[in-house]
Amino acid sequence: MDELEIDAVAEVELDDPVLVEGLPGVGHVGTLAVEHLLEELEGESTLVRRIYSREFPPQVSVEDGVSELTCAEIHAVEGSDGRDLLLLTGDHQAQSNDGHYTLTDAFLDVAEEFGASEVYALGGVPTGELIDEYAVVGAVSDESLLERLEDAGVEFREDEPAGGIVGVSGLLLGLGERRGFEASCLMGETSGYLVDPKSARAVLEVLEDVLGFDLEYESLDERADEMEEVIGKIQEMEQQQQMDVPTDDDLRYIG
Amino acid sequence: MDELEIDAVAEVELDDPVLVEGLPGVGHVGTLAVEHLLEELEGESTLVRRIYSREFPPQVSVEDGVSELTCAEIHAVEGSDGRDLLLLTGDHQAQSNDGHYTLTDAFLDVAEEFGASEVYALGGVPTGELIDEYAVVGAVSDESLLERLEDAGVEFREDEPAGGIVGVSGLLLGLGERRGFEASCLMGETSGYLVDPKSARAVLEVLEDVLGFDLEYESLDERADEMEEVIGKIQEMEQQQQMDVPTDDDLRYIG
Amino acid sequence: MDELEIDAVAEVELDDPVLVEGLPGVGHVGTLAVEHLLEELEGESTLVRRIYSREFPPQVSVEDGVSELTCAEIHAVEGSDGRDLLLLTGDHQAQSNDGHYTLTDAFLDVAEEFGASEVYALGGVPTGELIDEYAVVGAVSDESLLERLEDAGVEFREDEPAGGIVGVSGLLLGLGERRGFEASCLMGETSGYLVDPKSARAVLEVLEDVLGFDLEYESLDERADEMEEVIGKIQEMEQQQQMDVPTDDDLRYIG
Amino acid sequence: MDELEIDAVAEVELDDPVLVEGLPGVGHVGTLAVEHLLEELEGESTLVRRIYSREFPPQVSVEDGVSELTCAEIHAVEGSDGRDLLLLTGDHQAQSNDGHYTLTDAFLDVAEEFGASEVYALGGVPTGELIDEYAVVGAVSDESLLERLEDAGVEFREDEPAGGIVGVSGLLLGLGERRGFEASCLMGETSGYLVDPKSARAVLEVLEDVLGFDLEYESLDERADEMEEVIGKIQEMEQQQQMDVPTDDDLRYIG
Repeated sequence: MDELEIDAVAEVELDDPVLVEGLPGVGHVGTLAVEHLLEELEGESTLVRRIYSREFPPQVSVEDGVSELTCAEIHAVEGSDGRDLLLLTGDHQAQSNDGHYTLTDAFLDVAEEFGASEVYALGGVPTGELIDEYAVVGAVSDESLLERLEDAGVEFREDEPAGGIVGVSGLLLGLGERRGFEASCLMGETSGYLVDPKSARAVLEVLEDVLGFDLEYESLDERADEMEEVIGKIQEMEQQQQMDVPTDDDLRYIG
Repeated sequence: MDELEIDAVAEVELDDPVLVEGLPGVGHVGTLAVEHLLEELEGESTLVRRIYSREFPPQVSVEDGVSELTCAEIHAVEGSDGRDLLLLTGDHQAQSNDGHYTLTDAFLDVAEEFGASEVYALGGVPTGELIDEYAVVGAVSDESLLERLEDAGVEFREDEPAGGIVGVSGLLLGLGERRGFEASCLMGETSGYLVDPKSARAVLEVLEDVLGFDLEYESLDERADEMEEVIGKIQEMEQQQQMDVPTDDDLRYIG
Repeated sequence: MDELEIDAVAEVELDDPVLVEGLPGVGHVGTLAVEHLLEELEGESTLVRRIYSREFPPQVSVEDGVSELTCAEIHAVEGSDGRDLLLLTGDHQAQSNDGHYTLTDAFLDVAEEFGASEVYALGGVPTGELIDEYAVVGAVSDESLLERLEDAGVEFREDEPAGGIVGVSGLLLGLGERRGFEASCLMGETSGYLVDPKSARAVLEVLEDVLGFDLEYESLDERADEMEEVIGKIQEMEQQQQMDVPTDDDLRYIG
Repeated sequence: MDELEIDAVAEVELDDPVLVEGLPGVGHVGTLAVEHLLEELEGESTLVRRIYSREFPPQVSVEDGVSELTCAEIHAVEGSDGRDLLLLTGDHQAQSNDGHYTLTDAFLDVAEEFGASEVYALGGVPTGELIDEYAVVGAVSDESLLERLEDAGVEFREDEPAGGIVGVSGLLLGLGERRGFEASCLMGETSGYLVDPKSARAVLEVLEDVLGFDLEYESLDERADEMEEVIGKIQEMEQQQQMDVPTDDDLRYIG
């Protein structure tokens, strides 16, 4: 296995597509958002690339008894009403600092190959508490990108995100800028405790605005309702006893 | 020392052999199983390869005062009634993510060299509690392999293994599939607390079925009886006081 | 992204400049000192190099909504009364042992490029308690450098720094010596609990002496007064309750 | 800085020398032993090699204000009554698994350069409690080496060392064997709590026997007496209160 192995699964002609990244992160916001996009745009999307790497954890996932080696996937979407898209998903981030640089460069290579020059990294910014209003906080690789996003309702706050943006999302901005991309990061506010479908929806509504497509949100809203129930039960239990924050494993079962 | 050094200790002509992997893991199930195979098939087996690597921990084991550098070993078995085999054993796994990829590729290289195209990775899946029935849970690199194993009594469960399969066992499926191997992982249920000879036996019984050989289980059963005694004593002690789970060191002394 | 990418932002002719390093460390002494130098010498300084590296954490900082990839910066200062300077700043150190060697060599490469043969690494040495007197402890790459610094008030103590000097500051001495540089490390005593402007001032006063420039200290003194207030409040609170040492995050808010 | 930089400080003609390794480890036994050898054989010894490496921690030690980059040193000893020696000392081991392999190969390269084919790795084996009798436990790279060492009083025990021998000492046996060296490891029993001069003496008495030189032990015995006093005080204090085991830092101050 080389450091990177990119399998060309299919070829699709795209016109000035936008790379949209949804790898795992805070509240799984980015992942939920891009998976919802894939679901909604299923008719127009094609799996084009699988990216394997020694930088991914050495493991396989198993579904219905069949194994699949850790990888990231890129789907090409020929937008009917909106922009053409390259949707990046995966179950894992790189396992080393160095690996984040390697993988981000690989994702940008694929984006260039398809003629993309714009990137949206999607994620969550943790508030540390349960919230009712779901703002979307932003960061861009160049100030020329601020206005359009502000018009779409994105907030650019002076002290946020504190500590910057870490991992592939941050490097899509940092390396993207050095490679001539216009890169933006949209981070939905989220408690950080739970998989957060409402936060994913807030981020998608911004994307709808800037990328020109229309989405239904029924399945995301259903998940949001399920989460409401779970939150309600958690709060009940909290009042009864000291309780640990649900772990990611618990949440995978829920989400 | 290079990243990999493979010593050719002997050469043996094999006919379409099957690589069977038993490196350390949960409950030492894979290790026990393959060591039992080696014991039972001693007359037909030859040490053919020793694999040294910078990916192994930098240490030597000492037996009767003589040192041995950490390595993995491959024995060739010219099966009298069953398939020809390549049996992979070792005391350690790779110490880094990257190292797992390197070592798995090395094991598959040796397998190819001997003309193998099938792999069985043996291990344990932890139940978190002591059990009476020993099911064998499976995962395969391609769905065409499901039926034969189901016939042999292997269970393919929807949610298992949760979190996938990590390490060399998982990569033998993941990288094996990419390199044209038919790879299967057989995982004996085990508490995960103890070295588990009963779980090893359950896995070996599946192998007997699919690979066509006949094994005696006397020594494994003896070890199982010893374990029963230990479990009994542990349960007595537990009822008397708060007790830590026996460590691997305690268990090496027992097992 | 290569292991190192050095952007030449501007070119400046310098005459026998001195490299002064102020990367993050104990009490942020080095960082405060060099940032104060940059502030005071703004009219004479030019950003000449940005150093990006896979050895830096994979992240971007965000200011006013615009991202910036982690890097170290070197400003050239054409000294009006004092020596010409190369001022090295950054928000992060290397993230691996190996990385420290790589980055230090890169900084010395830039220094050589500009004709420098002298290096001052600035930092703090923790006393473990709040102090009133701010001595500057020193270490040099060659004993010929001792006298001049002793004349400037630097203390060379027999048992200090205990454990030597770790990270880029230490390697600027170690690798600097091997590459023909005259390297010195000036460490202001500091509690280690807080960002310490008084310690930074003590170190700068030594530099003024040896490098021949004159500095105002108004802004540093203002920060010192703010710290006094904070220390006062902390001591009050301590007398009231058990209190954790302020974290770096708290201190970034203060500092 | 390359991965390895070996400075040839001086050249000395040696006749079939023996490499003796005393890098930091359990009870500092190996370090104490080789430093005592260096002290006793000062008139016959010459520093011949300094080994710098990115595998060493990125730091400098400071003595009398002057810095020294982390390195290992090799002194050549032209034995007057005993064998010629190559004495290996240093303050640090490699910081990564991979690094241990790299450094051990470097040490063996230097040994080969000087015509050595025998290696003694010196260290301690922890008993976990204070002891009165100081046995020396052994391990060898080949069984042909057992007899001579047994005659010198070395004990080869069936279950020891449990867990094998880790780090450079272990690899000097493991890699030494593969490179044609006769390698032995001598481990003085020690509590593991303290720097242990008595353990170092026990190991040196074996070396005197096999390598044919005569040593005085006055300075080591003085240190042993100091340790006795410290142990006495510790036992007193223990009887008075719950007490933490002295740290390495405390012990450096003592030792």
